[in-house]
Amino acid sequence: MINVLIWNEFRHEKCQPEVAALYPQGIHSAIGGYLMQDEELIVRLACLDDPEQGLSEEALENTDVLIWWGHMAHGEVTDETASRVCRRINAGMGFIGLHSAHHSKVFRQLCGTSCNLKWRHGDRERLWTVIPSHPIAQGVPEHFELAKEEMYGEPFDIPTPDEVVFIGWFSGGEVFRSGVTYRRGAGKIFYFQPGHEEYPTFKDKNVIRIIRNAVHWAKPAENAAQIECTNPAPLEV
Amino acid sequence: MINVLIWNEFRHEKCQPEVAALYPQGIHSAIGGYLMQDEELIVRLACLDDPEQGLSEEALENTDVLIWWGHMAHGEVTDETASRVCRRINAGMGFIGLHSAHHSKVFRQLCGTSCNLKWRHGDRERLWTVIPSHPIAQGVPEHFELAKEEMYGEPFDIPTPDEVVFIGWFSGGEVFRSGVTYRRGAGKIFYFQPGHEEYPTFKDKNVIRIIRNAVHWAKPAENAAQIECTNPAPLEV
Amino acid sequence: MINVLIWNEFRHEKCQPEVAALYPQGIHSAIGGYLMQDEELIVRLACLDDPEQGLSEEALENTDVLIWWGHMAHGEVTDETASRVCRRINAGMGFIGLHSAHHSKVFRQLCGTSCNLKWRHGDRERLWTVIPSHPIAQGVPEHFELAKEEMYGEPFDIPTPDEVVFIGWFSGGEVFRSGVTYRRGAGKIFYFQPGHEEYPTFKDKNVIRIIRNAVHWAKPAENAAQIECTNPAPLEV
Amino acid sequence: MINVLIWNEFRHEKCQPEVAALYPQGIHSAIGGYLMQDEELIVRLACLDDPEQGLSEEALENTDVLIWWGHMAHGEVTDETASRVCRRINAGMGFIGLHSAHHSKVFRQLCGTSCNLKWRHGDRERLWTVIPSHPIAQGVPEHFELAKEEMYGEPFDIPTPDEVVFIGWFSGGEVFRSGVTYRRGAGKIFYFQPGHEEYPTFKDKNVIRIIRNAVHWAKPAENAAQIECTNPAPLEV
Repeated sequence: MINVLIWNEFRHEKCQPEVAALYPQGIHSAIGGYLMQDEELIVRLACLDDPEQGLSEEALENTDVLIWWGHMAHGEVTDETASRVCRRINAGMGFIGLHSAHHSKVFRQLCGTSCNLKWRHGDRERLWTVIPSHPIAQGVPEHFELAKEEMYGEPFDIPTPDEVVFIGWFSGGEVFRSGVTYRRGAGKIFYFQPGHEEYPTFKDKNVIRIIRNAVHWAKPAENAAQIECTNPAPLEV
Repeated sequence: MINVLIWNEFRHEKCQPEVAALYPQGIHSAIGGYLMQDEELIVRLACLDDPEQGLSEEALENTDVLIWWGHMAHGEVTDETASRVCRRINAGMGFIGLHSAHHSKVFRQLCGTSCNLKWRHGDRERLWTVIPSHPIAQGVPEHFELAKEEMYGEPFDIPTPDEVVFIGWFSGGEVFRSGVTYRRGAGKIFYFQPGHEEYPTFKDKNVIRIIRNAVHWAKPAENAAQIECTNPAPLEV
Repeated sequence: MINVLIWNEFRHEKCQPEVAALYPQGIHSAIGGYLMQDEELIVRLACLDDPEQGLSEEALENTDVLIWWGHMAHGEVTDETASRVCRRINAGMGFIGLHSAHHSKVFRQLCGTSCNLKWRHGDRERLWTVIPSHPIAQGVPEHFELAKEEMYGEPFDIPTPDEVVFIGWFSGGEVFRSGVTYRRGAGKIFYFQPGHEEYPTFKDKNVIRIIRNAVHWAKPAENAAQIECTNPAPLEV
Repeated sequence: MINVLIWNEFRHEKCQPEVAALYPQGIHSAIGGYLMQDEELIVRLACLDDPEQGLSEEALENTDVLIWWGHMAHGEVTDETASRVCRRINAGMGFIGLHSAHHSKVFRQLCGTSCNLKWRHGDRERLWTVIPSHPIAQGVPEHFELAKEEMYGEPFDIPTPDEVVFIGWFSGGEVFRSGVTYRRGAGKIFYFQPGHEEYPTFKDKNVIRIIRNAVHWAKPAENAAQIECTNPAPLEV
């Protein structure tokens, strides 16, 4: 069984009626509803306004894979919370950053770069599978379309990814490394670009399939643990 | 000074009038004309129909960077020629594969994959610079367009590139890792996707700038030599 | 269930009594004896002297992961056999190259480099786990020793690995990237350095654990298939 | 000309007589003395106890490549200083982290990992060149020894390096990825493991050659600039 925590800042849904109409109980609940159909997953939900920002030491300790959606309130996530999450990722927890999570404190701290990019509302996106045999691409077609999605465009200021699994094409003329993986410590990280709050992206079956695949891919290894500093004796010769 | 050898199979120009009209003395001559304006480059030209296919041991020995254009006659390049070129690359010669060079024996041998891809004539391409600080991207804008180019689309069956410098957007809906680098032995390799023979791609100033940058980037290191097998004595303790 | 084919050139065991004493039925049988204890694996054995060199189209078609040991007879493996194996790897079959497989036609063809290295018989090796959380390192200690092993030393002429999982330390003063991974097409590749025929390496429990882990790691994805060239129509706008 | 700033926390030299005896004017001055002999370099020195910790906005603006040595006072470097340095690196400044710089706020912030490792004083180290053709390895032998060096051992908790240029062998039985490169934004980063303050490492000609090579390698590109967020209009069709 994999313990999944879906974290959402959950603000747009409260202050923008058109977002509330799409995701009445929040983006996290929408994703959770799909993931709960996978019997290998134990799904919990958390929000920025929960106690300890929904990300207490205990909550993280009980999480195998953390899914993150945030946007307008990146700055409200405390440095302490962000560092706690990053430490837990390094100790083996998987992390799936969705859409504007690119600018979250957590993802930026994992990357060491600005994670800046181009953006524009209201494009059409076509996603291409670059590594069809990748675990995250299983059951995903060679390409699929999102009729409405926010354009995110290159140059995307991230470190060289370990793997580029998907590349996005936008009707306005841009491209984007839309699905990339990293390893940080014992933690596996997948960043996935689609998911603007004003569009029904999280109801798309391919998007959900990709998120579900990523959860399975990112689950901690048996050997997962933060690497420690030690001062060993030399080898006996 | 950098010794550049521009190799072209030089067949389309002889049998297709519309190609001859664009490149009357061949694609190699067109590229050469531009590169000769760089005073650090000594440019020579070679073709498939030259003696020893233009790629004798001696010619290669005197080459720092080899530029390759081939398409309809990949199969006529002998295995012996291809292996000779690959050995020389491993010993430090730079290699710049242009457009349909993706299916050349040389590039496939360097990759160990099929290098298969999607293709379609007559699209518009917009190239995006993914690593603006890369030596090959110096002086190249964030994006530029080729009004007519052959679409090459993902999935492109290549090994994980060391670097993805450019990604192409096509009007028909595809994307492509259009500029990628590899190291093989002591040799630096740059594959660049634009350059269909029916379009004036090699007259585009950004394309030429990229090729020229790549020549400087790919020149052999002082320490360049094929790594050899040796059987050394153990370290004295 | 994973179909594993363990291929061994099986010559040293026939002509060197000290090797026969260690591995009376061949290195392949020794490895196979251990792997057969894993109930998820269906293990078959094959040798260079079998019909079609033990690697017929049919045999490969029925193989999920191929383990390869070869040394003195690399040259007897026909180019046709090597190419057949490489095509099958690109179409999704996992490949585990052991020890002197570094110089096999198959591994060199996948790498595009000489795969040259340093070597010396009769060192002691200490292997270090560089990525403890990697699937291939599960259950493997941070380091373990092989009292007798052939030194393989850097520089090792291989492409930038996707991952370096193990690094070897040798008593004579050398180091080596002893466990490295690559993806070629849909196929996952693991090269592992230990396994000289004169030493009981394939009776070491950590070595066996690593090989078994690698088999599970390298099994083909559901989506595994050779990427093909296609000529699609443009996107409808 | 390349503007090099050599930054040293400069504390061990003030409180440990044996370190002062080796580096009477500090490690930074020792390195600087060598680099000043390179006529393409303009070398300046800075210390933790300088105003603005020697790393004011202006000082950084005028720096092409920053060399960093720190150890006992990592915690005294303010978060503000560390962030200012990281921003400047992302905007194109080269960064060379020496020895215990692995645990500096700057390097950890660039990596997003703990950068933990094993350590032990008083080993002998043999460094191996893994990529002889790399610019940082020019003029450096295939291997060289440091009679006394602090052992740093794997697992080293860093992200997958873009390149592993050197691997260290230690007499006590460990190995280490001793020379690794990264790109962060427009900045090039080289981490190099040797350089414990109690040993004459920075008087070794190979070490100095490597640092000097790294300075040339890490100098900013013409196109170097922080990638910004922009909100462009769609492509005209």
